[in-house]
Amino acid sequence: MTSQDLQNKTGELVFLSLGGIGEIGMNCSLYGLGPAGDRRWLMVDLGMTFAGEHEPGIDVILPDISFIEGERYRLLGLVATHAHEDHIGAIAHLWPRLRAPIYATKFAASLLAHKLDEAGIEGEVPLRVIPGGHRFTLECFDIELVGVNHSTPESNAVIIRTPLGTVVHSGDWRIDRRPMLAAATDETRLRCIGREGCLALVCDSTNAMSEGDSPGERDVAETLAKLIHDAERRVVITSFASNVARLNAVERAARTSGRRIVTAGRSMRRVIEAAHRCGYLKDMAAFLPEEAFADLPPEQVVCLCTGSQGEPRAAMARIADNSHPLIALDEGDLVIFSSKTIPGNERAVIAIENRLARRGIDVVTEHDALVHVTGHPRREDLKQFYRWVRPRYVVPIHGEARHIMAHAGLARDAGLAALPLAGNGRMLRLAPGKPEIIDEVPHGRLMVDGQVITRQEGAAMRTRRKLSWAGMIVVSLVIDAHGERVGAPQIIMAGIAHETATATPTEAIIHDLIEDTFTKLAPTQRCDTGHMGEALRRSIRRAMLIHWGKKPLCRVIIHRN
Amino acid sequence: MTSQDLQNKTGELVFLSLGGIGEIGMNCSLYGLGPAGDRRWLMVDLGMTFAGEHEPGIDVILPDISFIEGERYRLLGLVATHAHEDHIGAIAHLWPRLRAPIYATKFAASLLAHKLDEAGIEGEVPLRVIPGGHRFTLECFDIELVGVNHSTPESNAVIIRTPLGTVVHSGDWRIDRRPMLAAATDETRLRCIGREGCLALVCDSTNAMSEGDSPGERDVAETLAKLIHDAERRVVITSFASNVARLNAVERAARTSGRRIVTAGRSMRRVIEAAHRCGYLKDMAAFLPEEAFADLPPEQVVCLCTGSQGEPRAAMARIADNSHPLIALDEGDLVIFSSKTIPGNERAVIAIENRLARRGIDVVTEHDALVHVTGHPRREDLKQFYRWVRPRYVVPIHGEARHIMAHAGLARDAGLAALPLAGNGRMLRLAPGKPEIIDEVPHGRLMVDGQVITRQEGAAMRTRRKLSWAGMIVVSLVIDAHGERVGAPQIIMAGIAHETATATPTEAIIHDLIEDTFTKLAPTQRCDTGHMGEALRRSIRRAMLIHWGKKPLCRVIIHRN
Repeated sequence: MTSQDLQNKTGELVFLSLGGIGEIGMNCSLYGLGPAGDRRWLMVDLGMTFAGEHEPGIDVILPDISFIEGERYRLLGLVATHAHEDHIGAIAHLWPRLRAPIYATKFAASLLAHKLDEAGIEGEVPLRVIPGGHRFTLECFDIELVGVNHSTPESNAVIIRTPLGTVVHSGDWRIDRRPMLAAATDETRLRCIGREGCLALVCDSTNAMSEGDSPGERDVAETLAKLIHDAERRVVITSFASNVARLNAVERAARTSGRRIVTAGRSMRRVIEAAHRCGYLKDMAAFLPEEAFADLPPEQVVCLCTGSQGEPRAAMARIADNSHPLIALDEGDLVIFSSKTIPGNERAVIAIENRLARRGIDVVTEHDALVHVTGHPRREDLKQFYRWVRPRYVVPIHGEARHIMAHAGLARDAGLAALPLAGNGRMLRLAPGKPEIIDEVPHGRLMVDGQVITRQEGAAMRTRRKLSWAGMIVVSLVIDAHGERVGAPQIIMAGIAHETATATPTEAIIHDLIEDTFTKLAPTQRCDTGHMGEALRRSIRRAMLIHWGKKPLCRVIIHRN
Repeated sequence: MTSQDLQNKTGELVFLSLGGIGEIGMNCSLYGLGPAGDRRWLMVDLGMTFAGEHEPGIDVILPDISFIEGERYRLLGLVATHAHEDHIGAIAHLWPRLRAPIYATKFAASLLAHKLDEAGIEGEVPLRVIPGGHRFTLECFDIELVGVNHSTPESNAVIIRTPLGTVVHSGDWRIDRRPMLAAATDETRLRCIGREGCLALVCDSTNAMSEGDSPGERDVAETLAKLIHDAERRVVITSFASNVARLNAVERAARTSGRRIVTAGRSMRRVIEAAHRCGYLKDMAAFLPEEAFADLPPEQVVCLCTGSQGEPRAAMARIADNSHPLIALDEGDLVIFSSKTIPGNERAVIAIENRLARRGIDVVTEHDALVHVTGHPRREDLKQFYRWVRPRYVVPIHGEARHIMAHAGLARDAGLAALPLAGNGRMLRLAPGKPEIIDEVPHGRLMVDGQVITRQEGAAMRTRRKLSWAGMIVVSLVIDAHGERVGAPQIIMAGIAHETATATPTEAIIHDLIEDTFTKLAPTQRCDTGHMGEALRRSIRRAMLIHWGKKPLCRVIIHRN
């Protein structure tokens, strides 16, 4: 069968990212098989990211999946590689738009079920729990999960076999030469797939700019054990809750040092329950609730808590503030940030470290000791993976633009064929023939604004950004049929400096401007409320710039009596 | 003379920080001599810091100097150690409250004069330009400047000799073993002062958590020279404008590689002018204006620009966006961030790097090559300084709480007497007798809101923070004497989602609530406009929580007709 015959029969195998290339989080990959217009689709992961200061009022950002929404009747399923929010966090928000079955191993499924329950859709979602290493088919896709090591249990690479070739979608992975809890990345199985023949490796790029390989969880465990052992008083450890190996390491170290473990924070509790259900934490009794903290002598307690990113309402921030209702620290206690700070959270994390330091509490972070390791492959790990899987092409995903570019360069240096870069929304034909970008589809970001999902950069968010800079003034007036004022004007100011640089109170300035406007305009002109409102609005903004230095939003209401 | 006699005659020597201890920026130190209630004061530095996302609408933050405002008739002068914003940036804002003479060496004075001019007060301010190494007296204070190496020219330690002892106020400094432009830290003079006898060293703590010593400006210069030499196309270098040694290094490297230098950004231009006036840049003609960029072949140009912190309106951000009117880059060009990212700016800087990478432009940062070094002393440098100056006490200033604590620990480890920590506002008696905290004075942060300077956490800023999260709704109604509505209610929404999660438009929800309120309340009750307004306000906020998930600010205006 020639390549042309094959294409006529089965169409093409395409890869399409709707999120996660050139940005952090929101991972969402699609594999399509068939002729254009009649492709079957398989989705791998559907993650979210957290909003920053440039998205005021937004908590969470999701990938724009409108393309696949339009094709949802041909979407055969969604495979979740692992339990991290940047891979499954958008499912509870967006599943109602897709309604496809979801496939996940037990740990991710357990956490996902909880989210679906919170969203009130657990009953509707066909969530299929599959065992690690499972192989199954969805129509034309022959799918196999292969375990990879990562910073949360049950991370999986997804092997997608099609008549046009096999794709290895790496998921998030690392080579942990000294793994703690999770199995090592399944070298044997990956080598096997390499021998079978791998068309494309679609691969994690997070650390493609970091040379060498990385220490392992066991190295971190040893550091933590030593720190806990040497501590004379209370120890608090904040970490990513989903890193169960880390929780396990802390539990073991605490036990060895004759300490009990107290957990604080809802997500910590939730992960521990899920991990226990999956058999990763043998002794649940070891994890005491927050209430137990106060009754344990300082030298007999370790507290594991959430809030390593400085989240203001999480346990760590409240402990640092001494405002946590149940967990109080004193001078000489020790806090360990067994985590890395995600870009954007630096100020919040540093502020917490300083609040602790000011109270005489020792702080240890990854800058001081080996209390954290990355969950992603560095350059030597990537090269190793290439040697196992022996792909014809490497498609870098999962990383900022610089990581993606560095990964592409690494692949080229390793002698693999250069591919056109598959940015979000750029549909890459993997087979048949030479890979190329064949289409561009809508992509972008959806903002979760309260309970409403809006398009990127909605008007409401843009207005809030302006409000956050210069506040708002609303003036409300009543005029009669002759254009004369009825009663006193009402002025609402929100976020406005009441005293100005020129010493005239803002309210007096506005009253004067209303007076002026009425004086300047003839009664007939005043009856044109649109004109008068606009004149007043402009003069208020102009005056505020002079007296305050900023132009607030301004709206003028004129009631006709 | 016994210590008691001395105290009766001269009172006490005190140190008081109004900013910069336990926080970044806003450095402001005071030295007081005399009995309580009749002290003469000397101020060293008066800096600012930049606001972050938690201070919406604020650009700049200043130290609260109300204590010294109250004592300003006994404030003899302000000595500026060097030209950085965190040391002189608050002077133009706060000098009118102090009106004391300012002493600075030429480079800092030149930049300061420009700021005073912008603030329209240059004519009023007695700005005394003093030579490096100058010694002069201000009543009871015998003051000497000693040159120290730092990341801007003319950084000075201030030696303050008093009848009660000598204080060495280090300013910002480092030991650059291979200095480029500025003189090395004046070891000879410092040793001399050490032999004379030093009571207290009041010292930079920024890098007190960093082991070892640091590479020098010459090492950076060599890296930059190599990168520029090897580059095949355009090179853009963004750096802190005030680092004149760095500018000089780039200029030299460009010349060697047969390239011309184009500068972009107002502050870059301003520093270059000041540096030229002070004789630090011999060949001003070497720096071409932005307009020259387009005419130079790619392999013959280096552009030096502002914006290394990701400032959205600075040259670097606009170059990355390809929106700079005069400077355009292409694939294969090179951008070097010869800078470190200040905490809080990570997201903005990373976003710029990624925008460049996406366009195929190479990016080199301090993580990739030695293109930046710190301007502050690491632990080995601090110990070296102790050995030169041999102070009896070390007072750690200039750093976050963790740095201050680490510096105090280092001083103790070096065998120096432990001092009570002088936090901002805690007045530390240095002599006579054993140092102790003897008073606590008002301190804190002033926010520059437009042209208005407000106290920390002003109401306007707090309101803007709420507005940025959930926006604002204003309802305006007219009722007649019988409590009946006149005309239609007016609704203003700002920053509010117009469509809700329940599919009812927000405006319809509010109209219904107004309707309900009128139905529920009897006409006499409606005449109590306070009551009716509050009832409506509450029901709108409650309804928004249900339909949108957030509670906006809400104000109700009721006009009585």
